[in-house]
Amino acid sequence: MEDVEVRFSPEFAKGDLKSPILLEGLPGIGHVGKLVAEHMIQELGAEKIAEINSIFFPPQVIIREDGVIRLANNELYLYKGETHHLLFLVGDHQSTSGEGHYILADCYLDIAEDLGVRRIYTLGGFGVGHLVDEPRVLSAVNRPELLAAAEAAGAVFQKGEPGGGIVGAAGLLLGLSAYRGIEGICLMGETSGYLVDPKSAASLLRVLTTLLDLRIDPTKLQERGTELERMIQTLIEGERLNRDEELRYIV
Amino acid sequence: MEDVEVRFSPEFAKGDLKSPILLEGLPGIGHVGKLVAEHMIQELGAEKIAEINSIFFPPQVIIREDGVIRLANNELYLYKGETHHLLFLVGDHQSTSGEGHYILADCYLDIAEDLGVRRIYTLGGFGVGHLVDEPRVLSAVNRPELLAAAEAAGAVFQKGEPGGGIVGAAGLLLGLSAYRGIEGICLMGETSGYLVDPKSAASLLRVLTTLLDLRIDPTKLQERGTELERMIQTLIEGERLNRDEELRYIV
Amino acid sequence: MEDVEVRFSPEFAKGDLKSPILLEGLPGIGHVGKLVAEHMIQELGAEKIAEINSIFFPPQVIIREDGVIRLANNELYLYKGETHHLLFLVGDHQSTSGEGHYILADCYLDIAEDLGVRRIYTLGGFGVGHLVDEPRVLSAVNRPELLAAAEAAGAVFQKGEPGGGIVGAAGLLLGLSAYRGIEGICLMGETSGYLVDPKSAASLLRVLTTLLDLRIDPTKLQERGTELERMIQTLIEGERLNRDEELRYIV
Amino acid sequence: MEDVEVRFSPEFAKGDLKSPILLEGLPGIGHVGKLVAEHMIQELGAEKIAEINSIFFPPQVIIREDGVIRLANNELYLYKGETHHLLFLVGDHQSTSGEGHYILADCYLDIAEDLGVRRIYTLGGFGVGHLVDEPRVLSAVNRPELLAAAEAAGAVFQKGEPGGGIVGAAGLLLGLSAYRGIEGICLMGETSGYLVDPKSAASLLRVLTTLLDLRIDPTKLQERGTELERMIQTLIEGERLNRDEELRYIV
Repeated sequence: MEDVEVRFSPEFAKGDLKSPILLEGLPGIGHVGKLVAEHMIQELGAEKIAEINSIFFPPQVIIREDGVIRLANNELYLYKGETHHLLFLVGDHQSTSGEGHYILADCYLDIAEDLGVRRIYTLGGFGVGHLVDEPRVLSAVNRPELLAAAEAAGAVFQKGEPGGGIVGAAGLLLGLSAYRGIEGICLMGETSGYLVDPKSAASLLRVLTTLLDLRIDPTKLQERGTELERMIQTLIEGERLNRDEELRYIV
Repeated sequence: MEDVEVRFSPEFAKGDLKSPILLEGLPGIGHVGKLVAEHMIQELGAEKIAEINSIFFPPQVIIREDGVIRLANNELYLYKGETHHLLFLVGDHQSTSGEGHYILADCYLDIAEDLGVRRIYTLGGFGVGHLVDEPRVLSAVNRPELLAAAEAAGAVFQKGEPGGGIVGAAGLLLGLSAYRGIEGICLMGETSGYLVDPKSAASLLRVLTTLLDLRIDPTKLQERGTELERMIQTLIEGERLNRDEELRYIV
Repeated sequence: MEDVEVRFSPEFAKGDLKSPILLEGLPGIGHVGKLVAEHMIQELGAEKIAEINSIFFPPQVIIREDGVIRLANNELYLYKGETHHLLFLVGDHQSTSGEGHYILADCYLDIAEDLGVRRIYTLGGFGVGHLVDEPRVLSAVNRPELLAAAEAAGAVFQKGEPGGGIVGAAGLLLGLSAYRGIEGICLMGETSGYLVDPKSAASLLRVLTTLLDLRIDPTKLQERGTELERMIQTLIEGERLNRDEELRYIV
Repeated sequence: MEDVEVRFSPEFAKGDLKSPILLEGLPGIGHVGKLVAEHMIQELGAEKIAEINSIFFPPQVIIREDGVIRLANNELYLYKGETHHLLFLVGDHQSTSGEGHYILADCYLDIAEDLGVRRIYTLGGFGVGHLVDEPRVLSAVNRPELLAAAEAAGAVFQKGEPGGGIVGAAGLLLGLSAYRGIEGICLMGETSGYLVDPKSAASLLRVLTTLLDLRIDPTKLQERGTELERMIQTLIEGERLNRDEELRYIV
């Protein structure tokens, strides 16, 4: 297999896309970005157009509710909005290695460029280590002129936040797309960092839909956050029980 | 050397295979899969047809009882059943890296496809963290229509189990074979996860032989489990004594 | 993307270089080398001529003061001195993997050779585990005849120091350049190893400017050291808050 | 640079070799193999014929007593014995990664095959976790018929020892050379595993010189062991002081 394998569904025709925008919502701090992107996919009825597998994802399969497995993967969903078509990049995992992060992000940008994407939004969380009553939405951009748009939509830019830069796909997609002439805006919902955070996701969704000039009902975010938290706890527990390195790899 | 090297024995002729089925029983949780596969190889008198070496296996050799070493490896055994020939994939180790897991599984499927395999059974354990009196056998499949066959043979599918998905070869062989049109069923014996578990292996063997329409005496499973447990403890102790990272790699 | 990508600014013309010397001041013990190199760049008004990205750098972006991100990178600056042009290699990070250290150092030497560099100074710290009142500057070289020049400028060579050899770019650039016929001198400021150390940097700067026959005001080293220490603490705190491996990589 | 680079000295002519035998004595448990090989090189006056660098060695340089650095490396020395020429493979390090162990061992065997080597001795320690008064020398081979020769020279083979197999170059050179038709014998001196062990080295030297039909004075082994122990302690201390991951790799 290739290091990264992309399989588009046979029905998908890239010629049909109208001014496509890419939105990245992979797992991360507080799963804020993942929650927002998956909520939008559900509410908008976006359709899956591609599956992405990679040797840089964890070597495991996920068991669906019907007992059928699928490889840990990332996926692309398409929503055909009036003025813009939206491509959502979501999935189970980010890369397990630093090198893989770069190689995957570069691959995602190959796809974006090939599909004619001119703007990317990356969605994430911004951990502050304590509960937040009214989570702000921070922004960072890959061109100076984009900051005003983000701020007009309710995002804030605070010098020195987040202090640790932006790690993973949310950061690399912005950094690498600059060399391709693609605009990139990162939106980060303030969050404790300890739990899936629907409240932070609601703040982020508000800013993002303003930027996209869309209306999306936030009601089910709370419910989806609770469900996601439950799934994660099940996975962590399952992994804990099924990880015995000494037994697994010796003889 | 290649990243993965496969050496078939000169006597082996792939043209002779009859409707071959691949059974994977590499080391894993409770070594349930390994125990079942090696027990079947012994009881059926299956013959070794290939050795597989890889830079993704631990960099070490094993000392046989006669003082002759051999590389840590994986092996293929063949049993010529009446209706189906069975290919057993067994060995000392799984990959030491995540990327290696994918590359090895992909290589195993190249072999399977080349040999005309249309169905794969992967055998493993399912850790629950406590002793189990009557271990169930869980199943997961790579096509919905296979679940009924597994259940008819005594396997159960319980939504949400195992919570952590399936890690390593047992999972990847199923996930990756779906893209090649090969049917895959994973059988997992319930086990504490702490020790080699012959009881769980006996349950798994019962389901598997029903699926394969074979009769195999389970009597020696207990004895083989004890022997395997002893070997593992010797290896762990040997590794503990012969691992001094500071001394080994400096000067 | 390539494993290492080098982008020269369009204005840069390598034909204009006069007897260029490479100075490496990447992050390291006490950030002594980084502090000296960045201080010289500021004081001399050196200009950026190239940006270097690599999959071996951490997968993250840095947020500039104006809210615009940039990839973690290494950079080359040029100062056109009278007798020698100086090329400064500075940046955010060294490689995250051992293999990457070699591949990056080799790439830097490809650039150096291509630009006609005949001598390299690598700048670093030498950790002693306690505060030092009058930090010495240790030296090591890649040709015996270079030691006298370093000592004449105030560096000392003490047999057995530093005991652990020289790790990372400061060492590899010397070791690998020997095979290319490039002279290399490593200067290491004695430092506790716990904090950014402007005092050690001042000692190193004195020796280096003597070797280069340059005058550089050391006054602002203290201030730059304090600023660098502050930035590092912010980054460490930011990373601590935004690193939750379990949440990030599972579902 | 290549992943592994081998530089033969210009004076070396492989056509002059007479029935060459390869002896591997890289760092390992108790540094028994390293001590024996380096002692033999000194006592026999063997000459360096090649230097080996690799991205799989730690990314660092060693500072020689004259202040000149050299890359961490492995080296080949040649002693022209009457009946056999001896090639010694010694060095500072083994691979830092599992994959690198395989790739390096395979490269060493390419060299061995190219030079006409028909037999390899790998030398190591065998950790037992406690002090040993009269250290035995254990053996393992890659062909059954070799065991008798080792035993005739004083080595013992004890079923189940060492329990953990043989890790690193000493094991892989034996395992991989079997596929090339090269004979391999591993000799392991019993040792506590905690310190450089000249006593174990003396036992190993006795067996090895019997096998090679050579006489080598063991007197200086004790002194060389003490010197090696001192060097290792200096390096460990130096590394401890000069390793501050947070400072090194952030900003």
